[in-house]
Amino acid sequence: MKNALEQQIRKIAQAAKKASYALALVSTDEKNAVLKKMAQALLSQASFLMTENQKDLLEAKRQKYPASLVERLLLNEKRIKAMADSLQETAQLKDPVGEILETNHRPNGLVIQKVRVPIGVVGIIYESRPNVTSDCIGLCLKAGDAVILKGGKEAVYSNKAILKVLREVLKDSKIPADAIQLIASVDRTAVNILLKQKETVDLIVPRGGESLIEFVAKHSLIPVVKHYKGVCHTYVSEHADLNMAHHISFNAKVQRPGVCNAMETLLVHRDAAPRFLPVMVDEYKKAGVEIRGCPITRRMVKKGIKAAKEADWYTEYLDLILAVKVVDSLQEAIDHINTYGSHHSDAIVTDDQKEAELFCKSVDSACVYTNASTRFTDGYEFGLGAEVGISTDKIHVRGPMGLEGLTTYKYIVTGTGQVRQ
Amino acid sequence: MKNALEQQIRKIAQAAKKASYALALVSTDEKNAVLKKMAQALLSQASFLMTENQKDLLEAKRQKYPASLVERLLLNEKRIKAMADSLQETAQLKDPVGEILETNHRPNGLVIQKVRVPIGVVGIIYESRPNVTSDCIGLCLKAGDAVILKGGKEAVYSNKAILKVLREVLKDSKIPADAIQLIASVDRTAVNILLKQKETVDLIVPRGGESLIEFVAKHSLIPVVKHYKGVCHTYVSEHADLNMAHHISFNAKVQRPGVCNAMETLLVHRDAAPRFLPVMVDEYKKAGVEIRGCPITRRMVKKGIKAAKEADWYTEYLDLILAVKVVDSLQEAIDHINTYGSHHSDAIVTDDQKEAELFCKSVDSACVYTNASTRFTDGYEFGLGAEVGISTDKIHVRGPMGLEGLTTYKYIVTGTGQVRQ
Repeated sequence: MKNALEQQIRKIAQAAKKASYALALVSTDEKNAVLKKMAQALLSQASFLMTENQKDLLEAKRQKYPASLVERLLLNEKRIKAMADSLQETAQLKDPVGEILETNHRPNGLVIQKVRVPIGVVGIIYESRPNVTSDCIGLCLKAGDAVILKGGKEAVYSNKAILKVLREVLKDSKIPADAIQLIASVDRTAVNILLKQKETVDLIVPRGGESLIEFVAKHSLIPVVKHYKGVCHTYVSEHADLNMAHHISFNAKVQRPGVCNAMETLLVHRDAAPRFLPVMVDEYKKAGVEIRGCPITRRMVKKGIKAAKEADWYTEYLDLILAVKVVDSLQEAIDHINTYGSHHSDAIVTDDQKEAELFCKSVDSACVYTNASTRFTDGYEFGLGAEVGISTDKIHVRGPMGLEGLTTYKYIVTGTGQVRQ
Repeated sequence: MKNALEQQIRKIAQAAKKASYALALVSTDEKNAVLKKMAQALLSQASFLMTENQKDLLEAKRQKYPASLVERLLLNEKRIKAMADSLQETAQLKDPVGEILETNHRPNGLVIQKVRVPIGVVGIIYESRPNVTSDCIGLCLKAGDAVILKGGKEAVYSNKAILKVLREVLKDSKIPADAIQLIASVDRTAVNILLKQKETVDLIVPRGGESLIEFVAKHSLIPVVKHYKGVCHTYVSEHADLNMAHHISFNAKVQRPGVCNAMETLLVHRDAAPRFLPVMVDEYKKAGVEIRGCPITRRMVKKGIKAAKEADWYTEYLDLILAVKVVDSLQEAIDHINTYGSHHSDAIVTDDQKEAELFCKSVDSACVYTNASTRFTDGYEFGLGAEVGISTDKIHVRGPMGLEGLTTYKYIVTGTGQVRQ
């Protein structure tokens, strides 16, 4: 059984690799035309998609999955419209492939060009909404990459249906249908097998909970770009405009607490704390936020604050819970963020520009903010268009991973017979 | 014992991480001054370095290592001078840190800058000449990275001595001495322990034989940029200037056969083969090159050609041996290279520009050449300066890995109180 699955996944990966070579030669216009047809196909096949989605929903109810998961699984006309719109938008984005990044005329007459090219085959492992399936297909095709999707078992009927509709579109195009692949097996070993296909798969992108990410990083023989948790901080300096600090701190925690760019820990300079914290905590409490504070915070605010434990500083709550710490200096804030944070998004509120610069240089995160909410870390907000996720890795791509993150480069060298002396 | 080693390496990595934060704030002038002092220190401590190097040489002779290895280990005044020169040259290179890669003014007033920054801590695992030790230290410091070196056991005295001299220089500088670290243990498990320090080490660069690279890729929990073998090709089209093809093919194989950018397989279009191959093979034989040919090559050249086996097409000889194959078409050449090659450097010789373009687009290698020798794949030849190695990976850095490959970027976002709607 494991052998059969291994053979099947190896065949899928080989077919994707072969398709990737053809896809790399397809023009921008052809790619865009395909994306637009895919958008139309999702709309015209909406009832088929919803019928298949019902099978996942029924199974989810039978398995007594939490209501929030069932809600995320649901495909209705509005959501299918949103998936189609996303493909249309991807068609509008600038094609990154072929961009000449550098041209270097060497003294010996060689012309060396650094040119943006597709990566090849990208494997995406995720556990979530069916719209991720079509979003990732759109972005990968636009970047010229073949894609192998391994979605969650709870969405298997929906994902199969989406693939069926989109592959049908490819049959009448210059892009081989094998450029988009789904591993539909619900066997957990399927992920492990995919992670070994280093001859054919060029990059693995895992999106999901901590245990999935760690499993992938541990077992992959293929380079991985991780989309890990967001333990984001806001630091309110003693030089902050406290009214601004109030708005930013509130927004970063409360506006949408369940996402990775929401704040999890608020750091406050001890000279700002007496003026800032009592009012701020009051506001949080009105919004239903549970506060877990350091000893000074608890002394300062007096009532209704739980004691933060060491583990709280590491925790991504994804909920209306906030850890609060009073610090003695900018350096203590920086050290705290670099020690306990997840290198995702962190902000300082200050009117002192030198302080802001030192914070931005010293905090070792993908996105560092001065006087703005961490909630802006997002492909659309950054002007990159749709994103595959937010990378917390340092190499290849950092922060929002859009089309450029799905490409690499090659050197194209043109000579007139040069040989090495 | 293993526990003690584990603790020791963890401490080394933590110290490097701490030092990396300080190093990231050091100015270009200060870094360059340190590099120049390091160069002077190598020269003034040359006799100490040679004395320590003698211990490695003695041990190598006692262990009856091959003469070529002993030769590579040797440090003499000329080689120490070359190491010092390399540090001086690195001081002259443009500092990549701080470069603003993009600036994006968003409609909401946010200013989003993508800025080049150091990676943090880089671990380099290598088996080779002692000069690699000082070269890598120079490049990493210039890029603002702390570095942990794990050299081969055959060079342990030499490497320790180099570290001692260079750390001494750091003691009088703004760069903490802990920014350069050596794991001197000759225990093989030391590599395995280093590969698990994902909290502190940001990137692993292995340089060495196939088995080392595979071991690292399999066991690392840290992102790896691989510097793998070079199975490089030259394809002589039927549209080639055969005189040029002759010079390029000869140079790519014979000028320095022991390096990764030397050609290992020659592909020839069947219409060019009768005019090209017999003369070319004759020339190779005069230079002492052993030819392993496909059936058509053997029929065409008649005598003194061994039959190439399937394994030959995959082999990096690093020697005066060449595999030769006659192909029916450009596409067959491309397919052969993508199937058997190592995605390093491959060349076409042709006067047909459309053919050259299709070759360069379709061949999935870090460096693709038209009408030039593959031997040019090199940091200096590409105008990048010194290099850590040649990456055969597709993500983060591809081809020669110079200073830029030792950096990443972060987004620095400046606002005036913006919150997410």
